[in-house]
Amino acid sequence: MTQSTIVIKLGGGEGVNPEPLLQELPDLLARGHRVVLTHGASAAANALADQAGLDRRQLLSPSGHLSRYTYPAMLEIFVAAAAGQVNKTLVAALQARGVNAVGLSGVDGRLLVAERKRAIRAVENGRQRVIRDDYSGKIRESHPDVLHRLLDGGFTPVVAPLALGVKGERLNVDGDRAAATIAAALEADALVILSNVPGLLADFPDETSLIPRVTPQTLELARAAAQGRMKRKVLAAEEALAGGVGRAILADARVENPVASALAGAGTVFSR
Amino acid sequence: MTQSTIVIKLGGGEGVNPEPLLQELPDLLARGHRVVLTHGASAAANALADQAGLDRRQLLSPSGHLSRYTYPAMLEIFVAAAAGQVNKTLVAALQARGVNAVGLSGVDGRLLVAERKRAIRAVENGRQRVIRDDYSGKIRESHPDVLHRLLDGGFTPVVAPLALGVKGERLNVDGDRAAATIAAALEADALVILSNVPGLLADFPDETSLIPRVTPQTLELARAAAQGRMKRKVLAAEEALAGGVGRAILADARVENPVASALAGAGTVFSR
Repeated sequence: MTQSTIVIKLGGGEGVNPEPLLQELPDLLARGHRVVLTHGASAAANALADQAGLDRRQLLSPSGHLSRYTYPAMLEIFVAAAAGQVNKTLVAALQARGVNAVGLSGVDGRLLVAERKRAIRAVENGRQRVIRDDYSGKIRESHPDVLHRLLDGGFTPVVAPLALGVKGERLNVDGDRAAATIAAALEADALVILSNVPGLLADFPDETSLIPRVTPQTLELARAAAQGRMKRKVLAAEEALAGGVGRAILADARVENPVASALAGAGTVFSR
Repeated sequence: MTQSTIVIKLGGGEGVNPEPLLQELPDLLARGHRVVLTHGASAAANALADQAGLDRRQLLSPSGHLSRYTYPAMLEIFVAAAAGQVNKTLVAALQARGVNAVGLSGVDGRLLVAERKRAIRAVENGRQRVIRDDYSGKIRESHPDVLHRLLDGGFTPVVAPLALGVKGERLNVDGDRAAATIAAALEADALVILSNVPGLLADFPDETSLIPRVTPQTLELARAAAQGRMKRKVLAAEEALAGGVGRAILADARVENPVASALAGAGTVFSR
């Protein structure tokens, strides 16, 4: 069979259970898929920030998006949680299941190069402020050579959501969009974004209101249905398709064989 | 010229300045050396443990060695500091200097496989206790394939001092001995261990008492001269030579071009 390339994003939010995916991964590899696992780190970063006594304020953009305020001390905690704790926990768990995983981040091999957001408008107590010490970034380029090298060597890359700033900074980047960028750079057959919901819901949180398919014709409806964190996942799916990825699927991390289920049509399938 | 392979260990102790080494690395690569940079993380792990409010007791072995007590919560902090903070700081700093660095740890690609020390005898208030919840390990195997892959691809690997336990645990391992194991596995031409002293001193801390050469005939004297942290560095040098490495050099991280100086004969050169 031909080797299809699949990029998987495992959500890093509170309560996302990695076990079903970790159990499935050896099967996916045995079936000849080339797999890159990317992951979030928000729950781990929150826990470490709390342990370290850091203020973990969110920034509210004028358009209503919430994001982590990544001031310098928070960046250190985010790097520690994402590239240290979460990444190495996943790699060790995969190794224990016989998967020869190698963990890295977007900083490594210039996999993800981003531009730091130097002045962010944030709404606080109804007033706009400009935040200048935030270390999050907008991804500008991807250099997937390091992933090709590892995949060709039989390794399974596991990627933490950091990027290299154009001035050599380490930056916090959105995990869903990082996964989309990587999927596009690898010309992947599929991007599968797993979290604690069955997919995009027309009437959140009613899980019976799943939107099964999104095509260019129904994209506006999908955008309108997306609430909160789902907004970024829909954007990531769009970006992946625009970058040439075959399908982008928002699917449930909680079910058995979550990736095979998604590839078989479960979840919300975005296609061109 | 032939490509020589050099494994460098940058000490992670308080006050070790990485700048001279970071500045030198592009030159070493331009001269055709294949370089693997390994690093410690003790000062960063101490700072993060303090920030997180963890008790960072040391374990004193009956033979007088001090080591970090890596209980489960401390392991999380050590992984965060070593594979997250220190590793990605070095990788980003190298990228900013044009070196295409890729950070990983001994967990990744099974680079270092270790056995957890399940029962450690420690002396506390003059009495021996047995510690059973420590997650540090003794390195048993090295699988350098992932390093060969990266080096062949033109990347410079940067390795954090963790190992994969035989049961899939992440373990804290001594950075000097990890570097020695990697140097042996790569059949490196040289192992250069950099820290804040000129090398092995006959009369610590008198820096004029540097021991310039150690051969099998003078090894006992070197062992006797080593105090504190130096004991492990001497052991690492011995292990590297026993594993087939050409030379092992304990040298000064503070000087300009620390690696070229060491290769030219500065520091304490161990040879067979």
